[in-house]
Amino acid sequence: MIMINTGDGKGKTTAAVGQIIRSLGRGWKVLLIQLFKGEEFYGEQLILKKLKNLDFRSFAPRHPFCFRDTKAQDVRKQCLEALDFLKKNIRGKNQYNLIVLEEFNVALRDGFLKVKEVLEVIKQIPPDANIIITGRGAPKALVKVAGLVTEMKMIKHPYTKGIAAQKGLEY
Amino acid sequence: MIMINTGDGKGKTTAAVGQIIRSLGRGWKVLLIQLFKGEEFYGEQLILKKLKNLDFRSFAPRHPFCFRDTKAQDVRKQCLEALDFLKKNIRGKNQYNLIVLEEFNVALRDGFLKVKEVLEVIKQIPPDANIIITGRGAPKALVKVAGLVTEMKMIKHPYTKGIAAQKGLEY
Repeated sequence: MIMINTGDGKGKTTAAVGQIIRSLGRGWKVLLIQLFKGEEFYGEQLILKKLKNLDFRSFAPRHPFCFRDTKAQDVRKQCLEALDFLKKNIRGKNQYNLIVLEEFNVALRDGFLKVKEVLEVIKQIPPDANIIITGRGAPKALVKVAGLVTEMKMIKHPYTKGIAAQKGLEY
Repeated sequence: MIMINTGDGKGKTTAAVGQIIRSLGRGWKVLLIQLFKGEEFYGEQLILKKLKNLDFRSFAPRHPFCFRDTKAQDVRKQCLEALDFLKKNIRGKNQYNLIVLEEFNVALRDGFLKVKEVLEVIKQIPPDANIIITGRGAPKALVKVAGLVTEMKMIKHPYTKGIAAQKGLEY
């Protein structure tokens, strides 16, 4: 089943991380591919790295929106590398029960990946595996094929009051 | 800051668990108090139990909605025990940076706890600690004092198609 965490609210990534923890608790094998996050910027990465049965890879660490000197064509290339890595690791000795594609919605929204390219790879994932795709702006074509879609909706957020992101909470 | 994860969609608990993992990655001390979940029913509990700097306690394992032979007055008593445990552990040698109150919204919605009682205890939590309260039906009085409120909104869910909850995904 394909699951999507989208929306403007908090909880898209943390819900995926919590889902990883739940699945690992059941002895599942999990693959996490993150875009736009670096490898050590987020607190959870430091814990996730140590967990058994979880393979974690990071691609395209810099989104041009945050790092203005990052070239779009480089990001496109890095996102394609991520997709290629996914394609190569779908089957083989590691049969993942859960595959988490972090911020792939953003890569699709911003044109670094094309929906068609991603769907082509996803189609090759064995049907008994579960896939979570996170990020704002999930494209309609992806929502259409998903089995579960959750919108994290901001009702109240300190950002809107001008409070900065806090280490330990937001990253 | 008080944070609330509410709504009818998936991700309220998993987002809290992901937040715990993020905070532990930063060396924070975390207290997790769960209602209505038993101690071993959810996959994540098996992993969380093993993590350093996380204290995890479970109260009121059976909600009358799921277990019809459970008496409301017993659940009320157990929820008050949970609240009392929280009160006693707010300060002292364990200064928690993050306190997660799982399903407390449901306890409030269903009258097992009163908003006034909970707010009275929350007021005693040091202002630099962060509190996450999860569960459907967050009461307005709680939303009012919260700094961050996220509604997990169901856009598409397999339950509505009659598919049963899957071990590893939903629990």
